[in-house]
Amino acid sequence: MTPVTNARVLFGSVPKDFPIPGETTIYDASQKIDLDNAPLNGGFLVKTLVLSLDPYMRGKMRSPEKKSYSPPFFPGEPLYGHGVGVVLRSENPEVPVGKYVYGQFNHQQYSIVEAKGEFEFLDKHPKLPWTVFVGAAGMPGKTAFHGWKEFSKAKKGEVAFITTGAGPVGSLVIQLAKRDGLKVIASAGSDDKVKFMKDIGADVAFNYKTTDTREVLEREGPIDVYWDNVGGEILEAALDHANINARFIECGMISGYNTGHQGIKNLFQLIAKSITLHGLLVFRLHHKYDEEFYRTIPAALASGEIKYTEEVHHGLDKIGDAILRIQKGENTAKVVVVVAEE
Amino acid sequence: MTPVTNARVLFGSVPKDFPIPGETTIYDASQKIDLDNAPLNGGFLVKTLVLSLDPYMRGKMRSPEKKSYSPPFFPGEPLYGHGVGVVLRSENPEVPVGKYVYGQFNHQQYSIVEAKGEFEFLDKHPKLPWTVFVGAAGMPGKTAFHGWKEFSKAKKGEVAFITTGAGPVGSLVIQLAKRDGLKVIASAGSDDKVKFMKDIGADVAFNYKTTDTREVLEREGPIDVYWDNVGGEILEAALDHANINARFIECGMISGYNTGHQGIKNLFQLIAKSITLHGLLVFRLHHKYDEEFYRTIPAALASGEIKYTEEVHHGLDKIGDAILRIQKGENTAKVVVVVAEE
Repeated sequence: MTPVTNARVLFGSVPKDFPIPGETTIYDASQKIDLDNAPLNGGFLVKTLVLSLDPYMRGKMRSPEKKSYSPPFFPGEPLYGHGVGVVLRSENPEVPVGKYVYGQFNHQQYSIVEAKGEFEFLDKHPKLPWTVFVGAAGMPGKTAFHGWKEFSKAKKGEVAFITTGAGPVGSLVIQLAKRDGLKVIASAGSDDKVKFMKDIGADVAFNYKTTDTREVLEREGPIDVYWDNVGGEILEAALDHANINARFIECGMISGYNTGHQGIKNLFQLIAKSITLHGLLVFRLHHKYDEEFYRTIPAALASGEIKYTEEVHHGLDKIGDAILRIQKGENTAKVVVVVAEE
Repeated sequence: MTPVTNARVLFGSVPKDFPIPGETTIYDASQKIDLDNAPLNGGFLVKTLVLSLDPYMRGKMRSPEKKSYSPPFFPGEPLYGHGVGVVLRSENPEVPVGKYVYGQFNHQQYSIVEAKGEFEFLDKHPKLPWTVFVGAAGMPGKTAFHGWKEFSKAKKGEVAFITTGAGPVGSLVIQLAKRDGLKVIASAGSDDKVKFMKDIGADVAFNYKTTDTREVLEREGPIDVYWDNVGGEILEAALDHANINARFIECGMISGYNTGHQGIKNLFQLIAKSITLHGLLVFRLHHKYDEEFYRTIPAALASGEIKYTEEVHHGLDKIGDAILRIQKGENTAKVVVVVAEE
């Protein structure tokens, strides 16, 4: 067969603050691939269907010598992240043609993968598009589910405060907290998001850009569980308005990813109030909760018992702009990219 | 009987930074008490034997409108804190004459107490002076014991880093960690204290004033358990040199008590390394561990199996200077004041 274009999104250079489409991230359509004859060397050929774009990606846009929990992106190499694809050809008996796989994908249309590694097989769900499997039924959903299960110690009647509550993590946390009988305070950065958070059950939902977080917590708190996706001054406010024995689940600190982390000055509240802060990285909890997650969450999403939203972009060429939208908090929901229909 | 002097130490005024003897704390010998005839109104008369001076007292030297976990000192009123005393007269059948009591004492020679409240009875130990019961066998010892039991999740072969390791809390933590089979790194602020920490079993002991903490942790870490008595830049160093799944026990933050708390900028390490920070206030754990503590620790102190040191001052008039020594880190060991021999 004639080779076809294998478009990619490459990491360009380390951004000073916010990532710049075309500089930090570069759409490149120069590569070709012969889908029938490209050598597999014992591996398999996957067609990328959907890709996830997430806040944490900013942490990988750093100079390679800076250590962190996950490897950096390398200049000139493709970005990568969670995705779903379908196997087109295979020389690996473990990975049959036609299977759907979930795992780390390069941001390109087609990939030749050496080994199954940590790829998981997914079953096509009659009522859920593949995009859901990188969102509410994927890594962000697991982050919410596993983190809540492991750390919240939630008790009926307690008060939870959840930041970025309209995002894929926060919106599931809101719903898990409501299931457990908590009063839920939730914040996000637009009035549309506030409406969505109320729709999914938040008792108190507010736009942190137009409403003072401290005033809300003063009125509605103190808080027993804090789900932190933002860090910075909101974390300080949560510490000041925490209840005795509060549990803080530190999931993200997006306020500091692009412009530097603000120093937190009131950590003494940890002592004064016997607060516990738990750092959450979902992949360290997969072994404990993945089975229960896949057994319960996709079905609840399909039935509508648990709600989700997505901001869907079409085409690899939209990735640079979409990444910037996330870092600026302009996205309206979990951002996913449909690279190809099946 | 002729009234006798009932000397006191009063809280004078809120200090700007370090407490000033004579201004922040005022020795006052103007009050008299008739030990035989002073009305008890159903209460009891206690003679103060020993008093504890502790770092946390700085937090009470604040303006009364500032909220905190414990009430402030009030200008013109006596300081108070843990102490041991003996009952001289009593109209309360629950509190017989001659009993030794442990609890919150005003800093004065004699007190008339309304109700037993949270006072505990102590048995005189043939080999331990009363000073030990406000130190290694008192609140600081319980802080170490209860905190280590509740939060360390210590596993043999792990690495612990313990700050203010020559103090009454830190020195017991060092010995508990060694009992549990951990490698112990310990820091303090003088070479004498370093020697003491080695004597009680620290594998690596250093003077943080002359040795760079980060260099030590780089060489001897990463650390699995961090016992934090200081906060500030040492807490930042510990975060940078923590192992995956490390447990931080936040017991004190003396670096910020007098000159303001420095902002902690690298809390993202919590997420990157799945670290948990536990705020520790011992009185919230009494119900869980007091029984085991009194059953085991005084005996271990008496036999020499667990070692302790004290810096003993004699007389209420020494309290102002001794409090300042603690806040400046100049004390050589747990500071206790002998107010009266029996």
